[in-house]
Amino acid sequence: MSRNLELVSEVIDSALESPVPDLESFCADIATRLLDKHEYATVSEVKAEADYFLDVTYPSGKKGSEPYTLVAEARADAQGVLTKLIGVKVVGMTACPCAMEVIRKLNHQDDDKAAPTHNQRNIGTLMIEVPKGSHAVDADDLITIVEAAFSSPTFSLLKRKEEAETVLHAHRHPKFVEDVVRDMLQSVLKHYPSLPDDTMVIAKSESEESIHKHNAFAERVTSIGELRS
Amino acid sequence: MSRNLELVSEVIDSALESPVPDLESFCADIATRLLDKHEYATVSEVKAEADYFLDVTYPSGKKGSEPYTLVAEARADAQGVLTKLIGVKVVGMTACPCAMEVIRKLNHQDDDKAAPTHNQRNIGTLMIEVPKGSHAVDADDLITIVEAAFSSPTFSLLKRKEEAETVLHAHRHPKFVEDVVRDMLQSVLKHYPSLPDDTMVIAKSESEESIHKHNAFAERVTSIGELRS
Amino acid sequence: MSRNLELVSEVIDSALESPVPDLESFCADIATRLLDKHEYATVSEVKAEADYFLDVTYPSGKKGSEPYTLVAEARADAQGVLTKLIGVKVVGMTACPCAMEVIRKLNHQDDDKAAPTHNQRNIGTLMIEVPKGSHAVDADDLITIVEAAFSSPTFSLLKRKEEAETVLHAHRHPKFVEDVVRDMLQSVLKHYPSLPDDTMVIAKSESEESIHKHNAFAERVTSIGELRS
Amino acid sequence: MSRNLELVSEVIDSALESPVPDLESFCADIATRLLDKHEYATVSEVKAEADYFLDVTYPSGKKGSEPYTLVAEARADAQGVLTKLIGVKVVGMTACPCAMEVIRKLNHQDDDKAAPTHNQRNIGTLMIEVPKGSHAVDADDLITIVEAAFSSPTFSLLKRKEEAETVLHAHRHPKFVEDVVRDMLQSVLKHYPSLPDDTMVIAKSESEESIHKHNAFAERVTSIGELRS
Repeated sequence: MSRNLELVSEVIDSALESPVPDLESFCADIATRLLDKHEYATVSEVKAEADYFLDVTYPSGKKGSEPYTLVAEARADAQGVLTKLIGVKVVGMTACPCAMEVIRKLNHQDDDKAAPTHNQRNIGTLMIEVPKGSHAVDADDLITIVEAAFSSPTFSLLKRKEEAETVLHAHRHPKFVEDVVRDMLQSVLKHYPSLPDDTMVIAKSESEESIHKHNAFAERVTSIGELRS
Repeated sequence: MSRNLELVSEVIDSALESPVPDLESFCADIATRLLDKHEYATVSEVKAEADYFLDVTYPSGKKGSEPYTLVAEARADAQGVLTKLIGVKVVGMTACPCAMEVIRKLNHQDDDKAAPTHNQRNIGTLMIEVPKGSHAVDADDLITIVEAAFSSPTFSLLKRKEEAETVLHAHRHPKFVEDVVRDMLQSVLKHYPSLPDDTMVIAKSESEESIHKHNAFAERVTSIGELRS
Repeated sequence: MSRNLELVSEVIDSALESPVPDLESFCADIATRLLDKHEYATVSEVKAEADYFLDVTYPSGKKGSEPYTLVAEARADAQGVLTKLIGVKVVGMTACPCAMEVIRKLNHQDDDKAAPTHNQRNIGTLMIEVPKGSHAVDADDLITIVEAAFSSPTFSLLKRKEEAETVLHAHRHPKFVEDVVRDMLQSVLKHYPSLPDDTMVIAKSESEESIHKHNAFAERVTSIGELRS
Repeated sequence: MSRNLELVSEVIDSALESPVPDLESFCADIATRLLDKHEYATVSEVKAEADYFLDVTYPSGKKGSEPYTLVAEARADAQGVLTKLIGVKVVGMTACPCAMEVIRKLNHQDDDKAAPTHNQRNIGTLMIEVPKGSHAVDADDLITIVEAAFSSPTFSLLKRKEEAETVLHAHRHPKFVEDVVRDMLQSVLKHYPSLPDDTMVIAKSESEESIHKHNAFAERVTSIGELRS
């Protein structure tokens, strides 16, 4: 046990002298050293999560910061193959397309104005494999991609009018959990045109349904190549 | 340690022969016996939670069951005073009155039809003190009271039209967390006209805000007498 | 969403008329029906956990019950293959062999009496695949296997002398997390000699280290065939 | 809602220009401003927790850092009374005196060497009220007090011999949860001789019993005056 933690401690020590470029490299460094120290082992895996805050300018012009979670994974095997994944967990909002459509009919509403529907907190997760040595994928970009895939991003601080506009924005982009997953994956493809075909991508969306006592969940584990075809 | 658990075990054993009438009496029984066995103690407190399912008939006529949580507390002191509380935790839904009002204005909507707003899961908790020996307060009634205080109760199983109607019902009864608390307390007063003035009542409402990454919360600890005045 | 829950509700309804034989068959039933109802789907997975209590007779002769968790999984695919896993999560105790050995040396103790060491709560998980229609694997047997793989099982209710004997038993069987995993797997092989080679087995042990602020964890996913060879 | 968060945001903004001296002052600042902005309110309460790391030198001479949790509370009322509490949550280890004594008897051991017993992770919490403007109570000192009240503090990184010595140290200071609470309170009295009589002190100890599936817990809410008498 202590041997593994000693490694983590050593890596942190070196990081204090020359900081690691990112969380996934930190994981990869530990995974590689763990494998070196355990001769009998064939594979080592390291996972890490970190609180992360981004400075934002709210629609009102006020400045603040929004909370996110960084996630990273690394896997090293005895054949010398090293896999790294970098990702983010983001909280946003979805509005249900199905209930909105039925409510339009019930209300005989045939204009294109937003109709009421149930909406709720959604936790979107997006992880991308990064080639060894590459820093092509940036966590801030992933946050932008996930927030755009929600019906709307959410904010800690909103004036009354901004709150209303956020709600209307969500109602103009109603989405199921499977839509959030699909839209994240489409954005990844556009945003990273040069990622190789065998790059793994994981997208998840969990909806804390306001209309139900249980959550809805969608997930797709795929590759850039599969997304391209 | 073992002595305390032996008591719980004894109480469960007797309960298997002649079942306890309710969870708060179970707590009260253990609290009293704990005080008896620990001569040096001046007060003992016992808290319990239990999963609870109620059979319901959904609007579609289908039958099913919805999940709730029963909560009970008992406190016995060396002067022989025994206090029991019975309560429930219920999951429902609130729709925000404020965003709805601003959206009406933004949309120049002056009819009384429901306008879009943010809505979300709400956890309502209601606990009432019960006099020794009294079984005046029934958990099923408390569930009814809490569900009526939400913008709408929620259901595990809904056909599309029922889902839309549930959403519309919530939009016709928009509520802040403090409204849920106030409405629970008003119902308690109407539902239990004969409870004595010194009966303690606790009401809480926690909203998992769809528009924010944090929750909103309201709580009032009061007495039937204070509510009457 | 509702369609999936309707299925769960239907399965529960039929189960009330003719009870399901076990939790994994319950999962398998839902997995199969989910796949039938979703024509576009290629695979469906259902996981369930349930609180479980076993009546026990404590060393003192007192009767009581100990808490466990049942876990079950089922996976149905479009080719008609159905996989079921049944398992248990059990809380027990491990005593560290390494610290005990060093303490023996420090104390110049060369008899075979138990020496002090750190010991702690351990959560053991054991899951076994069961062939379709087979009820060869029983949860109560799995609990017995996991409890025997700990340094000692633990109990809710112990007289002072029994507590001491439990502690001594643990010190006579000191184990690392990897020992708990290995011993569970060896017992599975002995206990189920007729299980086919391709039967999947999952064993995990998590130790809430008393000497550290973090946990230690070991896991092996293997097959009966691999264990036999 | 937004109004409250705006306040938090403002306080954080000012803190970035001139940092707050400590977490409890941060809470007190927000509590006071909340009360100012809500004319109808009679009392406001703010609670905060923060991850905290202390640089330590391990017995081996290696340097590292150990994780703790800071806790702070502030309460402002309409009469202008402001109460602040600062505290820490610390993870350590307790060894059971009772099982050790019985094992000594069972083993006919009458020397004063450590005998085996069950030991486990313990979470100690200590909170002290601080007078307005005072910074007499320092979180690092509270951590020292709590760690000394355990059977032993624990460490993330231990060489084999240090691990054995930590275990032996714990066995030479066996303690129940109520001992941990009492010893924390006695240390507070010695360490802070000038705190006024009406200073509130809260001490808790929770033991994740290795011998049981449930935890043991002790708590005392008292005042410096009561401790002195």
